[in-house]
Amino acid sequence: MTSKSHLKYVRLLHQKKYREKENVYIAEGIKIVNEALLSYSPVIKMLLFTPENRSQLKPELIPKNIQVIELPSDDFRKISILKNPQGVLIVIQKPVARYPKPSEFGNLVLILDSIRDPGNLGTIIRLADWFGIRNIFCSEDTVECYNPKVVQATMGAIFRVNIYYTALKELFLSLHDSGFTTYGSSLQGENIYTKKLKTPAAVILGNEAHGISTDLLPLIRENILIPNFSKSVNCSESLNVSLAAAIISSEFRRLSV
Amino acid sequence: MTSKSHLKYVRLLHQKKYREKENVYIAEGIKIVNEALLSYSPVIKMLLFTPENRSQLKPELIPKNIQVIELPSDDFRKISILKNPQGVLIVIQKPVARYPKPSEFGNLVLILDSIRDPGNLGTIIRLADWFGIRNIFCSEDTVECYNPKVVQATMGAIFRVNIYYTALKELFLSLHDSGFTTYGSSLQGENIYTKKLKTPAAVILGNEAHGISTDLLPLIRENILIPNFSKSVNCSESLNVSLAAAIISSEFRRLSV
Repeated sequence: MTSKSHLKYVRLLHQKKYREKENVYIAEGIKIVNEALLSYSPVIKMLLFTPENRSQLKPELIPKNIQVIELPSDDFRKISILKNPQGVLIVIQKPVARYPKPSEFGNLVLILDSIRDPGNLGTIIRLADWFGIRNIFCSEDTVECYNPKVVQATMGAIFRVNIYYTALKELFLSLHDSGFTTYGSSLQGENIYTKKLKTPAAVILGNEAHGISTDLLPLIRENILIPNFSKSVNCSESLNVSLAAAIISSEFRRLSV
Repeated sequence: MTSKSHLKYVRLLHQKKYREKENVYIAEGIKIVNEALLSYSPVIKMLLFTPENRSQLKPELIPKNIQVIELPSDDFRKISILKNPQGVLIVIQKPVARYPKPSEFGNLVLILDSIRDPGNLGTIIRLADWFGIRNIFCSEDTVECYNPKVVQATMGAIFRVNIYYTALKELFLSLHDSGFTTYGSSLQGENIYTKKLKTPAAVILGNEAHGISTDLLPLIRENILIPNFSKSVNCSESLNVSLAAAIISSEFRRLSV
């Protein structure tokens, strides 16, 4: 490829259909790129950087078999996914999506039902990494985890958490068979601070505007509620979904300390 | 004003300097506008909407003394702050920023040290509303709470939470004098799940990239840590600041149930 065709190639990868066609995705920024280089898991195909950022990369960490392209800032701006381009970008091969083996489930999994905001999905992946949640299951209509905005919001956690898109009804049945208790939050749920929580647990988080799909509600075994402490009549109706994920995951993790 | 000058006026309010000059801010969307109309607190100066959205507004809720402007979708697009314009927008007078009286503090306050991302600030304001935290103090260099992206992310909580920008050093001294224990998270902190937390409490949350300012660190009375449950060597270094705010606030709120 000529330098010009590299630019065109990376720019096309901003679009989902080309990421799917090429089976790759992109990540930008010194921090996330260095994390990818240090880690074994992501298979890097191409590294692009500006002369100003060359010194921030450790040459000994750059795999031998990848394309390394130095390009001027003006060109980099054209392929950047950020408002303030960071001068370092990698093209990464998508890992093979796989349904985890029972031994890999751990005692807590997250199920995302139609999460649409890339920032929310990315933040939840980062949260999962922090709390040692190794698997996230997503409904087919959840935003693509290789969307560049999701990747940026994960801050590198996307290299470590297994994300699997699947039909949630079948998943629920399979999780129940494996001994998991399924939890969903609902206004009629029990106070999460006083309810006795059981593991292994699967926590389902619903769409930002519409909550959990009505066809899944009957499958949820335990309904929980993060209580509202506001005394105002017209207070917020709900918490942001990534904050709800954080608070609920935290309640499960505090069981083990 | 003519319709054209209304457009120009609202468009200028996308910029901080004009919001400061005019002492107003904007909010867009059916949900947040209806919430503002239902609530007593925000003083609405102007309401703009497209004919398609007229039916979504309750005429009896529209204050008598405000400017009401119907404008075609093409014009609305020019004043919209959203990628997908929602056809309803209000111009709101900024409330007078005020330092709360001691009786208004409540037993939990949040202190934001140089939070830069509008989404993070907005989400934290929404969190505060849910958890009945009535006051948020921000360092002078924290993103402006009337930035349209902040306002949108609060989902209306900005009408209910008191936000005050101030020098944090002096604030710490004053909080200590009022009997507050100040908490900050640090990698050397004590496990938040096992530490005995005391109220009234003030929780400081640091900048997304650099954490809490070094000159404030010596003023923090108690250091806490949300433990990392990942077994991976190169796991995430930190949680997103709004998630940390959620988990810490949740730990304080669970004390009272």
